[in-house]
Amino acid sequence: MADHLYQQVADRIEQLIEKEVIKIGDKLPSVRTLSKEQGISLSTAFQAYYHLERKGLIEPRPKSGYYARFSPRKLPDMPKICAPVKKVADVSVSEMITQVFYDMPDDRILRFSLAAPPDSILPGARLSKAMIHAIRTLPAAGLNYESLQGNIDLRRQIARTSIHWGGTLSEDDVVTTTGCMDALTLCLSAVTSPGDVIALESPAYCGAFQLAESLGLKVLEVPTNPVCGVDLKYLEQAIPRFKIKACLFVTNFNNPLGSLMPDENKRELVRIINKYDIALIEDDIYGDLYFGKQRPTTCKTYDTRGNVLLCNSFSKSLAPGYRVGWTVPGRFKEKVLRLKLNHSISSATLPQAAVAHFLENGRYEHHLRKMRKALHMQCLRYTQAITEYFPEDTCVTRPQGGFVLWLELNPRVNTFELYELALKRKISIAPGRIFTLQERYANCLRISYAMPWSKKIDDGLKTVGKLVTSMLKEAEGAN
Amino acid sequence: MADHLYQQVADRIEQLIEKEVIKIGDKLPSVRTLSKEQGISLSTAFQAYYHLERKGLIEPRPKSGYYARFSPRKLPDMPKICAPVKKVADVSVSEMITQVFYDMPDDRILRFSLAAPPDSILPGARLSKAMIHAIRTLPAAGLNYESLQGNIDLRRQIARTSIHWGGTLSEDDVVTTTGCMDALTLCLSAVTSPGDVIALESPAYCGAFQLAESLGLKVLEVPTNPVCGVDLKYLEQAIPRFKIKACLFVTNFNNPLGSLMPDENKRELVRIINKYDIALIEDDIYGDLYFGKQRPTTCKTYDTRGNVLLCNSFSKSLAPGYRVGWTVPGRFKEKVLRLKLNHSISSATLPQAAVAHFLENGRYEHHLRKMRKALHMQCLRYTQAITEYFPEDTCVTRPQGGFVLWLELNPRVNTFELYELALKRKISIAPGRIFTLQERYANCLRISYAMPWSKKIDDGLKTVGKLVTSMLKEAEGAN
Repeated sequence: MADHLYQQVADRIEQLIEKEVIKIGDKLPSVRTLSKEQGISLSTAFQAYYHLERKGLIEPRPKSGYYARFSPRKLPDMPKICAPVKKVADVSVSEMITQVFYDMPDDRILRFSLAAPPDSILPGARLSKAMIHAIRTLPAAGLNYESLQGNIDLRRQIARTSIHWGGTLSEDDVVTTTGCMDALTLCLSAVTSPGDVIALESPAYCGAFQLAESLGLKVLEVPTNPVCGVDLKYLEQAIPRFKIKACLFVTNFNNPLGSLMPDENKRELVRIINKYDIALIEDDIYGDLYFGKQRPTTCKTYDTRGNVLLCNSFSKSLAPGYRVGWTVPGRFKEKVLRLKLNHSISSATLPQAAVAHFLENGRYEHHLRKMRKALHMQCLRYTQAITEYFPEDTCVTRPQGGFVLWLELNPRVNTFELYELALKRKISIAPGRIFTLQERYANCLRISYAMPWSKKIDDGLKTVGKLVTSMLKEAEGAN
Repeated sequence: MADHLYQQVADRIEQLIEKEVIKIGDKLPSVRTLSKEQGISLSTAFQAYYHLERKGLIEPRPKSGYYARFSPRKLPDMPKICAPVKKVADVSVSEMITQVFYDMPDDRILRFSLAAPPDSILPGARLSKAMIHAIRTLPAAGLNYESLQGNIDLRRQIARTSIHWGGTLSEDDVVTTTGCMDALTLCLSAVTSPGDVIALESPAYCGAFQLAESLGLKVLEVPTNPVCGVDLKYLEQAIPRFKIKACLFVTNFNNPLGSLMPDENKRELVRIINKYDIALIEDDIYGDLYFGKQRPTTCKTYDTRGNVLLCNSFSKSLAPGYRVGWTVPGRFKEKVLRLKLNHSISSATLPQAAVAHFLENGRYEHHLRKMRKALHMQCLRYTQAITEYFPEDTCVTRPQGGFVLWLELNPRVNTFELYELALKRKISIAPGRIFTLQERYANCLRISYAMPWSKKIDDGLKTVGKLVTSMLKEAEGAN
């Protein structure tokens, strides 16, 4: 899809702002002048400015025109590669996690801690229609057990969309599940036994550590780069050394770092797991939420031996409450099916049929386009606000997709203390400490930009920034 | 609820048939005569005969009147107590189970093997209405995650119905799950570690063995009486001897034996598990499907220490495809919640709300009354047909609830062979061998009476009976 004309013009202006040809505070040409200069219509010129305004790069001032307010150059540094302590840790479930995620029934809390889509971004009405369609058309109105492998129409739709990431799936490769955590549980159970060691990114989604613990697994955290993902050289040496049985990685926009593993790294990762004949469970739950021009590939794209178990769901992009997920378990399919049978008989009938119907009509692609655009804008606005409100030595990631920013603060700031202070002001953040089993990332935090930009969000980030600044001052005073 | 007048009259006639005062083949008084003799209306007299006819005890002959056709006395013997070999077995998943339950996409097969309610017995239209109500009334049409513990209205309704089995639950005691297997998985995981030994009934539901295997557990099978359930004396000695960590029992109408543990045994079982401080996972999935006057109690009824984890679902009585189950995990609640979080985040939002709405309107009780009556009738008709069509030395259980009959055939009949022969005639049965991990019950089979009585069912049972007879003859010839 070629860019719109307004976007081309906006991109040129953005480059000028970035190169500081247009400096922050500079007045931009009026809409009329821009239109004449660029040979574009007035409305295209207006759209270009509107686009830059939504990106937070320029601002309109009443009765005066547009001014540059931000340069991408001004963005803070990226965090360095995340290097956990190089040892295998016994998993111990953290009370902290429970506190951060599940003791918050208060609706007034501003949840920067929640990496899930808000209702407003989801196609509620259309999906409800699909659900009612399912009730009216399914045999016995969907009261009966679905087949073990899952709704055939849904599996077909999932197979069809695999073309976007370079897959060539057939419906027979897909097993539906009750959300992505269920898929991860089944796949991890299929490829490991209690006592085995698995590799996770560091930092990694706290749910992955808890899942590993509940399955009696030990975890090796692999150093991870915020741009390109896990350190593959380290991994290759670690597999034989720590007798790693399986890797569980989020290769696209992982949580919380947001790194995107380049294609060549994905190929290399597949080579490594094949060399040692171990399994890779690839959680691709954020893969559809890319900001770039193209859907990123997966390791599954390069998997010829069936050692990659791809897991995904519609919980981050369509309907968390429907609990519809899926896996492409490669050569472990029979084992995964048997485990699914043992643990749940089958997944719920109606939600699968509703999602299938929603996908059949091309509604999903349309919705995703809107959602990606919204998230990208939000990502930029949140980043700018953090740049503005947080101390200068704050490092922030530049995710190319997904829901979250990872911030590295001055080492003297403890983010669990920050969490507690912020909560008193009805703001919730996710402290870095919960994304590892080790004593690390105590000065890091995760900020979700899932909530649409608003004055409330702006104020919330300002408050957190002020808290950090005052914590830092206090720490300096104590020295 | 007092019996109807017609039922009182019918009961008296049934007793006369049982005592052989009225012998098989005897003509009964005409409807008019019965009405006069008993001082009841003509329509009541007719209803009494109709009731006896549906129970299979009398039959109308055209232009002649009603004749006795069957006496409860004629029923075959009960199987004796089921005594497995007394050792701990490593669980190994049986290909047989997969074959019997999951390789049958052919709709023309008559499935005596399936212990699930057929559509025709379920309130499809009313439940769909409840689902549509849920879509229209829930915030964001049910797209959002449900709370970890589950829909509050549903938990309240479940707590409310606990009065039927002598419980005094509050909504806070209940955790919803994705069907009963999910509840069992969570509870077993909460109370055991891989390598632990658990006790199951013998024979027991094959899914329980498979679940145990997938959790790395070892199983001790406890001798079980078809009338009153597990042998408690044996159990009390076995717990310390085999270091049993938990029991998983179906105390009401267990599958496949159909035994109903008397109240005093339930009390005693609770005493035993408390003595050794081990957990009892009580699967009560058939408890609502009783044929008697009263809902049986549960061990949970007598549990004061929270060592009983009650598990149940709406899959056997309302909507298998909704995957709505629940557990009352007693003192293991926090652990169960944490496991639920790790493995699935939460259960699907809409199905829970739909079932809650269905229950709120008293529709569930109404539906259950109808379903119990239908199942009871079917149980009687199937039993009579088996009595008629199977060899005389066949033993059959007398379940007081649930879906299944357990048949013990002559030891020379191998029921897996019978399964294969019957399948060629498009009839599926469940061979006894799949309900144990040991080399036992090879001459037993389970027949589900879930399908409404019909000519097709009658013919199907006749065919199986003939197969057994000819297998037996062949075996005798071979001697």
